[in-house]
Amino acid sequence: MSADAAAALIHHGDNVGMSGFTGAGHPKALPQALAHRIEKANQDGGHFRIGVWTGASTAPELDGALAKVGGIEMRLPYQSDPTCRDRINKGEMDYIDIHLSHVAQFVWFGFLGKLSVAVVEVAGILEDGRLIPSSSVGNNKTWLDQADKVILEVNSMQPLGLEGMHDIYYGTDLPPNRKPIPMTGPGDRIGTPYLHVDLDKVVAVVETSQPDRNTTFTPPDENSQRIAGHILDFLGHEVKKGRLPANLLPLQSGVGNIANAVLSGLNQGPFNNLTGYTEVLQDGMLEMLKSGKLSMASSTALSLSVEGMKEFLDNLDFYRQRIVLRPQEISNHPELVRRLGIISMNGMIEADIYGNVNSTHLMGTRIMNGIGGSGDFARNAYLSIFMTPSVAKDGRISCIVPMASHVDHTEHDVQVLVTEQGLADLRGLAPRQRATVVIERCAHPDYRPALRDYVARAESAARNGHGGMQTPHILDEALSWHSRFEREGRMLAQD
Amino acid sequence: MSADAAAALIHHGDNVGMSGFTGAGHPKALPQALAHRIEKANQDGGHFRIGVWTGASTAPELDGALAKVGGIEMRLPYQSDPTCRDRINKGEMDYIDIHLSHVAQFVWFGFLGKLSVAVVEVAGILEDGRLIPSSSVGNNKTWLDQADKVILEVNSMQPLGLEGMHDIYYGTDLPPNRKPIPMTGPGDRIGTPYLHVDLDKVVAVVETSQPDRNTTFTPPDENSQRIAGHILDFLGHEVKKGRLPANLLPLQSGVGNIANAVLSGLNQGPFNNLTGYTEVLQDGMLEMLKSGKLSMASSTALSLSVEGMKEFLDNLDFYRQRIVLRPQEISNHPELVRRLGIISMNGMIEADIYGNVNSTHLMGTRIMNGIGGSGDFARNAYLSIFMTPSVAKDGRISCIVPMASHVDHTEHDVQVLVTEQGLADLRGLAPRQRATVVIERCAHPDYRPALRDYVARAESAARNGHGGMQTPHILDEALSWHSRFEREGRMLAQD
Repeated sequence: MSADAAAALIHHGDNVGMSGFTGAGHPKALPQALAHRIEKANQDGGHFRIGVWTGASTAPELDGALAKVGGIEMRLPYQSDPTCRDRINKGEMDYIDIHLSHVAQFVWFGFLGKLSVAVVEVAGILEDGRLIPSSSVGNNKTWLDQADKVILEVNSMQPLGLEGMHDIYYGTDLPPNRKPIPMTGPGDRIGTPYLHVDLDKVVAVVETSQPDRNTTFTPPDENSQRIAGHILDFLGHEVKKGRLPANLLPLQSGVGNIANAVLSGLNQGPFNNLTGYTEVLQDGMLEMLKSGKLSMASSTALSLSVEGMKEFLDNLDFYRQRIVLRPQEISNHPELVRRLGIISMNGMIEADIYGNVNSTHLMGTRIMNGIGGSGDFARNAYLSIFMTPSVAKDGRISCIVPMASHVDHTEHDVQVLVTEQGLADLRGLAPRQRATVVIERCAHPDYRPALRDYVARAESAARNGHGGMQTPHILDEALSWHSRFEREGRMLAQD
Repeated sequence: MSADAAAALIHHGDNVGMSGFTGAGHPKALPQALAHRIEKANQDGGHFRIGVWTGASTAPELDGALAKVGGIEMRLPYQSDPTCRDRINKGEMDYIDIHLSHVAQFVWFGFLGKLSVAVVEVAGILEDGRLIPSSSVGNNKTWLDQADKVILEVNSMQPLGLEGMHDIYYGTDLPPNRKPIPMTGPGDRIGTPYLHVDLDKVVAVVETSQPDRNTTFTPPDENSQRIAGHILDFLGHEVKKGRLPANLLPLQSGVGNIANAVLSGLNQGPFNNLTGYTEVLQDGMLEMLKSGKLSMASSTALSLSVEGMKEFLDNLDFYRQRIVLRPQEISNHPELVRRLGIISMNGMIEADIYGNVNSTHLMGTRIMNGIGGSGDFARNAYLSIFMTPSVAKDGRISCIVPMASHVDHTEHDVQVLVTEQGLADLRGLAPRQRATVVIERCAHPDYRPALRDYVARAESAARNGHGGMQTPHILDEALSWHSRFEREGRMLAQD
């Protein structure tokens, strides 16, 4: 069927579960046709808006196209598209930010309402109807199982050589019938390489031939390399102290430049026979697989640069033996993250002096992307590490603040903070001890005096009966750095 | 050995792992003897302070006695003693607030330093050296395994009839050697009824005969009954919608008056064949076991009133068949909470309009008790419910505020908020939608106009480019309610 004809099967008010995770494996033709249909309907005075559920972020031809025509009523669970973000922050569409491991079960529980249509990209369809998944798995199993209608988009750009790389676990169930997930190592295969679908629900098959989101690999900048250096030193120290095995524990690595720098550092580093258990496999892990530093990697998506994708395609047989792509409810499952003892490394927007982390909101009010899987990993990890450069906007923003303007990871879930300045090991420290370490190790020197002054005055106030000494704060000033940035474009008053 | 002689085996700087969870099963004689020893040492110009690690809260003769003499350098993971709290908030002792399920593994990982001494109350010692645990299990397995020296306190007030009620799981391990925990129902027994200890490490056995912390049962007040009513209506609605089985799912219930009211309501309510999977078993669940409404309950501690304890002792054989007491790493384990699909109901200090919950800090700075197990349960539960009266201090404090002054449970982890005013079901709602529901359903009518006004002005500011519409806030005002309370003793300006 043409994408236009298939798009006609989606109606106003539908909740549509789309494939796609970090710009990989999303449908390409259907969402653009749908955006066109919506644009036309709304031009003619109609009101056509849908709910868009995905695995995580997609690409301009999905989130971008639908947001541009105002076609999204509600979006979940993670997005990173500029148009989408702009609409959300203008109040023109709703966004629900959910732990990535929670999404599938919330749909099964019926907490998010009815899923009308699944739109899932696949690499191929076997004669018996089983589906070869494409470059991400995300929530596809759940979308196919739960939707009334299914639209498949067969993308001939997705290599058929992906067949056999996926591991779709069909053993989940609803409480009280859940069983232990039978995985004890990051490379265990516990499911089947194929997605199943009730063929009676398939209302359209659309053909396309378009690449995943193109990214260009940028070599790590100096700050990212410094952050990576601090983390490598720390891991080495932990091994020496006997708190980590010589080959570490399975690595989870967030998306982006810093994460790639850490992986690049590990690729040059002293640790061998490493493993990955993460949600997105990027160039950094691919290089580690190639070099042999990494013996295998598990994730729910392949998000590669153009160069990375070429390397991957050229050596597909090699990588198929070393990569397992799983549903995100498995890649991010608390049970497995805790059991495997993940070393979790994620970026953040800001941290406060007591170790609370903001991963989602700029100045407390504007959504950036979403929490993604960081909560799934950090809460249950063996080690939870959060990373950021110490300043942003040419130094006008400090990423270490008196009080986080939004909290996504509480003091209870944050063990290590890292900036290019240094690494703060918060394990076993009470809040005021944490404040000292965070300021002296992680804050940019330009901001240390103001942070020290804040702490000193907050403690002095508490000693004089205005507040407690567990977590001293000056409530009228705690968010003043953010407020000043909103007014003056910088967090600290100019000298 | 006398308690005094045993106390002499503990030295300045030791980290001491004590038994005890919610006033149950803590050592009684040793801590008091130790407090005496510390008081004397410090009177003579010495400096004698220890680290005190427990299961959760204890009682005046442990936390109270040691805090009174200034003998605690650092305390973890949960406390509720007034003297202890006062010292913490004055900055005279450090307190590290940790998820209760994290404590044991952090000690095994070596994240909290060396555990010097374990002081564990037991109900009895078998001839072969196996220990009959007392009224709580907490972290005792870990203390006995990890400490260099072990002091046992045999309390003849603990009924020997407890023998067989416990289930101590010895299958935990360190990553990468962890295996699935073989439990699929709340009543499954997966371990042994006894604690094991290396007899060579036992340096003292102390005899005592003292009761657990005495509490008197207070019948639920009107607000608690209303909160219970809202929750019962909600659960009934969920069953009707097919989102919960007719016998619900295993119940986790926090401590206190509201929790007991909910259980009391359930005891009169329409649901049958219920189960409990919780960290503390209080009078409410005991009554439900007695009535048959509850078929079994799993917890890590028995925290009963004087009347409840009498009922329990009089019918020990009946309750032994229906209660399983487990280590807190199992009672609160994320793997099990998620698998079993717990209905989690916990108290809180305040929630903000967007659904962020503060469980620990008064006015953002003073610790109350600690996060306890609320994070273990809420994040992984089938349903996470938080409860509080809508106001405190005779109405001078609103428990629904513009911005939480401390965040322990983020917007991502809070599904349902309940006050005596009503219930806010936040599932599937974006932040601004949540704000409306929280204000109109949960806030006290006296505070609704001010909350509505805050939201309206925050949204208006965002529309005018000052901030985003995802989570609108007025940063200079977000914590002003708390600040005014600190200054004027009330959150809102007087008319």
